[in-house]
Parts: sequence; structure tokens; C-alpha cells
Amino acid sequence: MLCYGGESMSIKVGVVGATGYTGSELVKILSQHPEVEVVSLITQNYAGIPFWEVYPHLYQYNQMVCEKLDLPVLLDAADVIFIALPHGHAMPIALEAARQGKKVIDLGADFRLNDYTVYEQWYKVEHTAKELLGEAVYGLPELNRERIKGAKLVANPGCYPTSALLALAPLLSRKLIDSGSIIIDSKSGVSGAGRGLSLGIHFCEVNENFKAYNVGIHRHTPEIEQELGKLAGDTVTVSFTPHLLPITRGILSTIYARLITPVEEDEVLEYYRQYYQEEKFVRVLPGGLLPQTKWTAGTNHCDLGVTIDPRTGRVVVVSAIDNVVKGASGQAVQNMNIICGLPEDTALTGPGLFP
Amino acid sequence: MLCYGGESMSIKVGVVGATGYTGSELVKILSQHPEVEVVSLITQNYAGIPFWEVYPHLYQYNQMVCEKLDLPVLLDAADVIFIALPHGHAMPIALEAARQGKKVIDLGADFRLNDYTVYEQWYKVEHTAKELLGEAVYGLPELNRERIKGAKLVANPGCYPTSALLALAPLLSRKLIDSGSIIIDSKSGVSGAGRGLSLGIHFCEVNENFKAYNVGIHRHTPEIEQELGKLAGDTVTVSFTPHLLPITRGILSTIYARLITPVEEDEVLEYYRQYYQEEKFVRVLPGGLLPQTKWTAGTNHCDLGVTIDPRTGRVVVVSAIDNVVKGASGQAVQNMNIICGLPEDTALTGPGLFP
Amino acid sequence: MLCYGGESMSIKVGVVGATGYTGSELVKILSQHPEVEVVSLITQNYAGIPFWEVYPHLYQYNQMVCEKLDLPVLLDAADVIFIALPHGHAMPIALEAARQGKKVIDLGADFRLNDYTVYEQWYKVEHTAKELLGEAVYGLPELNRERIKGAKLVANPGCYPTSALLALAPLLSRKLIDSGSIIIDSKSGVSGAGRGLSLGIHFCEVNENFKAYNVGIHRHTPEIEQELGKLAGDTVTVSFTPHLLPITRGILSTIYARLITPVEEDEVLEYYRQYYQEEKFVRVLPGGLLPQTKWTAGTNHCDLGVTIDPRTGRVVVVSAIDNVVKGASGQAVQNMNIICGLPEDTALTGPGLFP
Amino acid sequence: MLCYGGESMSIKVGVVGATGYTGSELVKILSQHPEVEVVSLITQNYAGIPFWEVYPHLYQYNQMVCEKLDLPVLLDAADVIFIALPHGHAMPIALEAARQGKKVIDLGADFRLNDYTVYEQWYKVEHTAKELLGEAVYGLPELNRERIKGAKLVANPGCYPTSALLALAPLLSRKLIDSGSIIIDSKSGVSGAGRGLSLGIHFCEVNENFKAYNVGIHRHTPEIEQELGKLAGDTVTVSFTPHLLPITRGILSTIYARLITPVEEDEVLEYYRQYYQEEKFVRVLPGGLLPQTKWTAGTNHCDLGVTIDPRTGRVVVVSAIDNVVKGASGQAVQNMNIICGLPEDTALTGPGLFP
Repeated sequence: MLCYGGESMSIKVGVVGATGYTGSELVKILSQHPEVEVVSLITQNYAGIPFWEVYPHLYQYNQMVCEKLDLPVLLDAADVIFIALPHGHAMPIALEAARQGKKVIDLGADFRLNDYTVYEQWYKVEHTAKELLGEAVYGLPELNRERIKGAKLVANPGCYPTSALLALAPLLSRKLIDSGSIIIDSKSGVSGAGRGLSLGIHFCEVNENFKAYNVGIHRHTPEIEQELGKLAGDTVTVSFTPHLLPITRGILSTIYARLITPVEEDEVLEYYRQYYQEEKFVRVLPGGLLPQTKWTAGTNHCDLGVTIDPRTGRVVVVSAIDNVVKGASGQAVQNMNIICGLPEDTALTGPGLFP
Repeated sequence: MLCYGGESMSIKVGVVGATGYTGSELVKILSQHPEVEVVSLITQNYAGIPFWEVYPHLYQYNQMVCEKLDLPVLLDAADVIFIALPHGHAMPIALEAARQGKKVIDLGADFRLNDYTVYEQWYKVEHTAKELLGEAVYGLPELNRERIKGAKLVANPGCYPTSALLALAPLLSRKLIDSGSIIIDSKSGVSGAGRGLSLGIHFCEVNENFKAYNVGIHRHTPEIEQELGKLAGDTVTVSFTPHLLPITRGILSTIYARLITPVEEDEVLEYYRQYYQEEKFVRVLPGGLLPQTKWTAGTNHCDLGVTIDPRTGRVVVVSAIDNVVKGASGQAVQNMNIICGLPEDTALTGPGLFP
Repeated sequence: MLCYGGESMSIKVGVVGATGYTGSELVKILSQHPEVEVVSLITQNYAGIPFWEVYPHLYQYNQMVCEKLDLPVLLDAADVIFIALPHGHAMPIALEAARQGKKVIDLGADFRLNDYTVYEQWYKVEHTAKELLGEAVYGLPELNRERIKGAKLVANPGCYPTSALLALAPLLSRKLIDSGSIIIDSKSGVSGAGRGLSLGIHFCEVNENFKAYNVGIHRHTPEIEQELGKLAGDTVTVSFTPHLLPITRGILSTIYARLITPVEEDEVLEYYRQYYQEEKFVRVLPGGLLPQTKWTAGTNHCDLGVTIDPRTGRVVVVSAIDNVVKGASGQAVQNMNIICGLPEDTALTGPGLFP
Repeated sequence: MLCYGGESMSIKVGVVGATGYTGSELVKILSQHPEVEVVSLITQNYAGIPFWEVYPHLYQYNQMVCEKLDLPVLLDAADVIFIALPHGHAMPIALEAARQGKKVIDLGADFRLNDYTVYEQWYKVEHTAKELLGEAVYGLPELNRERIKGAKLVANPGCYPTSALLALAPLLSRKLIDSGSIIIDSKSGVSGAGRGLSLGIHFCEVNENFKAYNVGIHRHTPEIEQELGKLAGDTVTVSFTPHLLPITRGILSTIYARLITPVEEDEVLEYYRQYYQEEKFVRVLPGGLLPQTKWTAGTNHCDLGVTIDPRTGRVVVVSAIDNVVKGASGQAVQNMNIICGLPEDTALTGPGLFP
């Protein structure tokens, strides 16, 4: 069995949806993980094809051949299953894995919302694995580490929620802000839209261009509100606006909230530092220094910058992550490390690619 | 003399600061203007050099040679002077031009703020032409056309303020929003920073990157607040955050405000259409369609998209402009056209460059 | 009827394939053309939809609704038909148009190659309109203007061939180079691949990336060789390598050939200037100045720079065009202007968008 | 002393020119190197400033403070000195280091050319350390490993030469090509120009743009010719044209040469595979697969693709590297590993950042 200590530990891992961008990033990270053996790469469109043909940057790094999903075979071979599929497709896999006592880390949305009626309302799909919602753990380690340790089913957070929640947690915990005043203006690189074909992510449509989309109706909104609500101890409603940046990787969220009482910037920064002092992946930047997406490229970091604006009585928090790493596959491996009792940053260290 | 009708009209124009990006765009637009004769291209660094050597895309379009500033010579030759210099440098030129009865359109900040103490506080420079502030007209034609018609000195708006004011004017005029709740999250292409060398606009520092800057302290803030205050009939304080996009041209502003009373999206859109029904350069997009910067590339348009979010009780307005055109040089020529009694869109027509 | 002089001239134009990138650029250029009335926008996928919904940058510029192809209706309404379809699809339309005496300008490859066996070999499609090949005129005006004037069917050149032929024509005409030594290393922006969906032109696959493709086997090769052969008066075989640039618009070709006898750079430049002295769209840059794609963005120009390398005995010519304009739709309108006896640059003037 | 085995080995390293892009990449790679202790970060402009303030992506990875050059102090502290300075500045440092028996790896051009008259002719600077030229070793490990092992002074190759030499070595060694027919058409990302300010690498001048530069006169030409000459056993003269890509990292070289006798593509590919079979950093791609720069981003790889074009009798080799890593700092660390008897890929493993 997996996940206890011992010299010969090797975690047998399967990746379902291996040929999307989050899947390929999982494969890349896991290929550098000393305690992992990847046993299965599942894909819908590339079965029988060597993985490196789909992702030639991994030529000579990965010799595996993609396979179609055969659930009994997969569950027999793997102890941990990462699911990197569009929403709606993880539920049947998770159900069967649960029956067989296998660990599942789902990078999609199927188990992020505690209330299935909210899921069905925002995602327009019936929830067919409601019985798992009680045991699914929201996998944001910095806020939820203890519950993740014993989890069988981890709902890996969305990319936008990761950037928003880590930015707001200290403020809500300390009750510094009016929770009805929160505005989250987020900008994401194109990789967040995945590798599937779509006119909106065609090079000529995105390059030298910028737009907002899904204003007020993006599906990450209820996920953000659910988790902020837990932090605030009350219902929270936010304005959330995603935008599409002409870059490949990176999310930057600019977040506004009204301070309940005036407070000095240094004091707030100090509180952020305390809040995250044990965290390896959250960097609270010194006062006056604001995050840039590229400083996090290829890393599992979330960088935070905090500004108090006394003219308006608002705090402005800027957070930056690599949406493919901390916003998806890196965080998923971080969750696996926690579940398996490994050092949390195994295979996740190293600075970013700059310039 | 300039600016009355007649068959042989030819407006003699000088451009001071011709070799910056806004200067070169002025030269380009004016080279296509049927009623204009450009008589002088003034520059600090390229005197004696053919303009096309500085901007080879204009090879065979412009045969002029750049000159150092000789104010008497310039004022003798030109009837309209465009000043495209960093703040602080327009004041002496405007003073002398005023004495000689020449028209000045200043693309910088020296005459945008009515109160010189506000100017000195935000720009850290002494105002040495206070006597002109009374007659300077804020050159946003859609809001201020009548006063521009007779103006001797036009303060051409900043790029960010143009995008914010056109987006908010209908809401404030109709008193639909709480003026204390306005948050302006703006994203600009790099050309807004000009052609001067600086590490922050070096290709490798900007490309595949994104950041916020000058949070709460950008100099366009008091300009926005001044003009919003006139629309609201009251003091207005806003949160304004600029960001740097890895694109050359374009500003997109995402603007949030709390609705005073609930209102339908269709109703608000209809009000926007009425407000701008005579305007050639403002396009209120149909419901559900949101602006993209590239749709305005190379044009004098401002595109507006409006979303009502009933969950939060907020309105979200998205505006897009080409910062070099409607945000600077195109608007400056629009102002000249108004002053000179020409059709307002002379030399400013035509759709954008897409893809 | 079309195409003679007269005050009330209005050329009735139909565009088949209007919703691709070259189609939309045609629509844009024609919308600014004073002698043209666009009567029909034909599309496969967007019938019944307003054109501006497909291309919102043309909102308020074009009120037409896209239609499915109904050939009799089209030929009844239009005097000139532009065909902007993938190869193989223009043949039946051109056949019927020829029967009815309508002018056709085909932006695809169906009529570019004089020898149908070469066409069938490179394009893997049967040629079903061989009888038109005799009258089809290769529409590169700078080399072929006289024949275009009377043409009924114009084969608008490919984008790469346009950039290569204009660069090499003076050298071959003057017999300065060994025609067996020509190497054409071309780099194109992504718009050349059209608007159809394909993984290879997905933003994340192209951005911050660069590659060669179709080395030695690109379909523009026989077209280049055919036209170079005419200039050289002999069979010409070239190495042609296309590459994909992470930009939207622009082709830059770097072309190498061995000089038959040593020659001074100034002398060659002077010969280029003479060769193109009557041409409005070819700019031979002064010695030492090399073309950049962005100097031609949005224009119908071809910019040329010539370097003699005495160390190697080679000449290196660099040419730049906007592939969507001079490489496709602008050149097509240029051909229409020639056919219709209009000034050749009607609707094609104006400098490029820089920066 | 350094560079023998043993458990407590720690190589003391100084980096001169640490705040340029190649310097910062050295710092980043060395920060992950288990056998290295960085003892000194020398800079001209940032003395006294924490390194992470200059490169915030290294915040919490590097706590060192930049220092001005004090040569005696540096040579006292460090056993290996990396010099990442513009040409002309490494000579005095290398001279003094040689006197003290310290190892030097120079990332600049001062010791790459064996003949100082060639250096002085191309670089327009007097060579003031001629006595070191005899012992300087050209640090391209795949071609020169044995000599590097014992080197005291390594001249780390230029970025363009690295991409060209690895592509051509098998062909010249096997005498498959006419060495007078070589044309090297190279395209580089902007980071190759360094971090110094210059209009030509300003974002707005490079973005959505492409150009050739220094045609026939780039300083890497004699370096390429010198090393090709050694491979060919004869004088080699090449056409070399560099271009500037609107990307940050990556060089792709497209290289043409005439085959002396016809040969099958498979046969040539097999020969490439044999030639590089022991090499960890050269990936000969399978037939039909051509390199893309992004597949090498952040890695020390050189990817090679080979095409035989029987129509023209030419071979076309495409090579791709990350210019900052294999083209500079990664290769420098590879050289250090060789000198010090460490596994050659220490701190240089791991796949690239894609997408």
C-alpha cells in the first residue's frame, strides 16, 4: 500500500486526462518526483501514441504510451489517481475509486462545491456522486492542511480561487474588511483555457489583445464565495471578473475591499507574514514591491503584495501565481505529498523562469 | 489665419515632441489630413535628422527634417501647436503661444487639473502658467464639445481618464450609482509609457508578464476625480489601479460601481445609446458583447460594454480604446477639428486593424 | 456594367469566403473604397449572421448579413467576384463566372500554376477547370501589370511568393545571380494560416515559440519557381523554408544567392530603385536600413533591403510585407483597381500602424 | 582546493557580472547546485543591493548582497570565477586569476578566437591578454570535452555558434557537405541582447515585429568559421544572418548546405544519432519532427532536426536551444562540472517549460 514511510516507497500514480495542459504538467512534475512511479497515462484522443509525440518537450524524459481509460485496470495499477478532465467527467471515476479505497485528486470542479444544488445551478450538469461530497476535502493546503492529510478525495482548487483565497484569507481571518465590499479583478494567461480547440484562444484572436469575459457569471464565483464564507464565518458575495491575458502562464488578481477601521500598511503586511510564516509556497513581498506573474512562472509559489489606500479607505491586494502549477498541477502534487506524508515541496522546489 | 471655412484652407501645424510615440502618431494622422500642413517637427534628440529615419514606417510619407525648438520661429510658422512632451515642459510654450494668439493643444498633464495646488501635489513640479488655467479647456469632446469650440488652449485628456470618463459619464449623469463606490481597474499597453528607455518597458521584462503598478497613487487619479466630480456635481473619490499589459496598443478599463437602485441591463444600455447617440467615436456594444482592445487598434473609437450584476447590485462597465489614438493623438486631432470647424472625424475614420 | 470610367461608376463586388481573415480584410478595404459597392458576403459557417457579429471590429462599419453561396444569385448581383477559399474550391465558381463574363480574382492557389500536373502533384487535388488556365493571369502587378489590365481571371499570388518574387526580380532580370543558388528563408505571422481551428496555431503553442515547417515541401515552392523561371528565362529550383513567427501579421523573407560577378552594394541598390521607380507599393530602403515587418503592418507595401557580402560573394535580400494585405487582400484590390482602370492605390494608401 | 572528489566538496564560486541576464541565470542554476557555494556576486550598478531586489523572482532563494569588483578579495574567496561581462572586460580579470591559479569560465568573447588579430578586427578592441590565448579552451563540451577537463580558462561559446556548431558538426566530420555552401539563418529571442537599455529591445519596437540585423557582419561569424574550420580541417567561410524574434528565450537556426553526394535522410539521421549517442544534452529528433524553441525553454538541451531535400541536393538542419541556458549559463555550468569532475548534468536536468 502507499503512503507510509519506508525506504522502498514508491507511489503508483495514474493520470486521467494526461494530454491536456494540466495533465502534461502533472506528468512533467511527477517525472521529477523521487517517490512516484507513474503507471498509467489515460487520454481520450491519443491512445496508442507515445506521450512524447503529444508533448515533444518531454522527448527522452517520458517513454510511456497513452492509453484509453479502462477503469478496472487503472484502479488495479494505481494507488493515487489524478483526474484532469472537464467538469462532469470525474464523478464516475471517483465513485469507483472510493469503493476500492484508492486516493483521488480531482483537478476539476466536480467536488469543490459542498452543496450539489449550487454545483448543478452553475455547471448545468447533474451531480451523480453526491455521496462523496461529504468526504471530499477542498485542497488548498495553506488553509486546509489538516483535513487534507487524511483525505481520500481531494478537490483541487480552481486557478482563480487559489489566487483569490490566498490573497484574502488573512484579511478575513482578522476581520479587517467588510466582506460585502470585495471585488476580485483577475487576469489569466491562455493556458487556463486548456488545449482544446476554440476560436477564442486562437493565436491571432488573443495576441496583442485583451478582454474581460463571463462578467458576473464565471463558475469559479461560487467556489470563491464558499471558501471565503468559511473564513468569514458568514455568507460572502463577491464581484469576480476574469480577463484573458495574451500570455501563456500566469494569473494576477487585483482585489479590493473596504477596511472596517483604518490600519497601517506595515501592520497589515506584518499580519500577512505571520499568517503565512510556515508556508513554503506563499511569498509575502516586502512593502512597495508588487507581484508580477513572470516571477512565479514554472513555480508553485503564490506571491502577494498589499497596499493600503488611505484616500479611499480600501486595501488592495495583488496576488500572482502560475495557473498551471499552483493553480492546478503543482498544487495537486502538493496535496499528494501531504496525503502521503512526504515533505510538502517534494518535486516542487526551484525558482521561476525569468526572464 | 486659420480655422475659418473656405476652399483654400490649410491649417499650419507644428508638433513639439514629434519623435515620441504620441508625436509620431500625430505626424502620421496629420499626414493624412486634407486641411493640414505640418510646418514644423520639434524634437530634443533628433534635430537635423529626417523624420523617417526616426520612424522608418513613414519612409516616403514624410520628407521633413526634425528641428530643435526655436519658439519664435515655431510660433511664427504655425497656427496650431500640438505639444507632446512630458509634464512640466508645456507651460512655457503655452504661455508664449497664448501671448501671440496661437492655439495650443497640449497632450501632457500641465493644464488638465483646474487647481494648481492639486497639480503641484501630484506632479511634484511648480506650476508656472497658472494664469492659463482659467481658459484651458479639458479636451474630451464627448463631454465638453461646446467649450472646446472656442478654446485657445486645450488640455488633451490622459489615456486612462479617457477610458474611465466615457465609461462612467452616463451612469453619473443619470445618478444611477453611488459615487463613493467606484473602482477603476485599468490595463494598458506599453506604448503608454512612451519611447524613452526604461528597464520596466524592456521587452524581456514585459513579455509573457503582467503586473499592477502605482496602486492608489497614479497621477491620472486626480484628473479622473476632477472630471467625475463635475459629472456628479459633487466630490468623487475613486480607487484607480493601472496595470501593464504585454501588448503595444490598447487600454481596457473594468469599472465597478454600486447601483443606487436595481435596474435592468437593457435599460442601462438604452440609456448609454441615447447618451452617445450623436457620437461617431463611441460605440455602445449590444448587450452581451464586451469590448476587446484589438477591435479599436489604430482607431479613435471608445467601445463600451455594460453588465448589470444583480447578485451583487453592481454595474460593471468595460471600456476599450487605443491609447495612442483616442487616448492621445487621435483625440488631439479631434479637438483640432472641432476648434477649426472641420468635420470632427476628418482624418480619423476607418475601422481598426484586426486580426 | 463595370469598369469603365464615368461619374456614377460603382463596381458591384461579391466576396466568397468573407469570414476568413483574408475575406474580412477584403471587406474592410472595400468598405473604404469609393468606387465599390459590396453586394454579397458569402460564407460557409455564418449564413444569416450579421458580418459585424463575426468581426466586431467592423461594428457600425458593415451592416450586411452573411449568406450561403447561391452561385446564380451571386453572379447576377456582382460584376467582380473575390474568392477567398481554400484551394480546390474556386474552380467551379470560376468556371461559371467565366461563362457569364464576370471578373474573378481568386486569392487561392487554383489558378496560380500554369501546368495543371504541377498543381495536382503539389496540391493532391484534381484540377477541374483546366480550360481556364490559359487565360488566368498571375496577379503580381509589379511584374505583370499589362496582362492584368485585360484579365478576366486573376490568380492572386501567395503570400510567400509575393515576398520572394519582388525581392528577386531585379537580380534575375539583370542576371546578377546564379539561379541555382537561391535560398529563401521565410518567416510568417500566424494569420497566414487562416482562422480555421488547428492546434498548431493555438495561442499557447505559438506564443514565445518559433519553428520551421514543411521544409522543402511547402506548396508555394512551385509557384515561386514558376515565376522566377519566367524572370530568369530558364528553369529555376530553389530551397524554400517557411517558419512560424509568434506575431499576427507580417512576412519577412531572407534570401541568399551567389553573385555571378562581384558588384558594389550601391550599384545593386540603384538598380533596385530603377526597377521599382514607378511602383507605389515597393519601397527600396536606403543602404544600411533593413526592413522590419511592423513597418508594413496594415499597408500594401513591400519593403526591400539589399546587402552585398563580399566575404562570401553572396547577395542577401530582405523583404517585408503584411501577409494579409500585400500578401493577399490588398494585392487583390490592387488587381481589381488595375482591371477597372482606377488609380492603382485606391483604398490602399496610408502608412502602417507603428508602434 | 576545489574539484577533486570527497564528501565535503564545495566549490567556491564567484560571478562577475551577476546582474545581467546571463549572470542571473548563473545565480539561479548555481543556487540549485549541490556542490557549489556562491561566495560573491559582482556587479557594476547594484553594489550594496540585495540580489533579490534586482531579480525578485529569486526572493527567498538568494540572500546575498551585490558587491563592486575588488579583484584581490574575489580571487581570495573563489576557486572558480564566471565572467559574464561585455567583451573586453574579461581580459584583466582572467590575467590575474591565471596568475593565482584560479579557474575562469568566461561567458564573453575575449578568449573565443584563437587569433588575436581576428578578435581585434571584429571587436574593434585591443587584445590585452594574448598570452592566455594558448591555454584558453573553447568550451563546447560535445566537441571539446577532453580539452575542457584540464582547462584553466574556458571560453564559453556564443549563443549563435552553439546552435550552429552542434548542427553542423556531424555533417562536416563525415564530409557530407560542401563547406563553401553553408548558410546559417538564425533567429534569436531578445534576452540574447542582455538587460542593458537600448531602443531596439524596447517592448514596443520588438513586439509583433521581426527583423534581420548585422547581415554579413555579426561578430559571431569568425567564431563559427574558426570552429567549423577545425571540424572540416580547412578554412570555412559561411553566410550568417541573425534575426530578432519577439520572444524572450530561444534560438532557432536554419542551416543550409549542399550535399557532396546524394544521401538518404534516414542515413543522415542515424549518423547524427551515433555522433551524439553519449550526449545528454543533444536530442536528435526522429525523422519528420522539427525542433521548436519552446521545447528547450529553461533547459540545457540542443534539439536537432535534419531534412534532406533531394530536389535541390541540399541538407537543411534546424537546431533549437535556450540561448540563456545552453547558449550561455547552462553551458558554463556544464563546463564547470566537467572541470571539477562532477556528473556533467549536475543542476542541469529537467524538462522545459511548456506550454
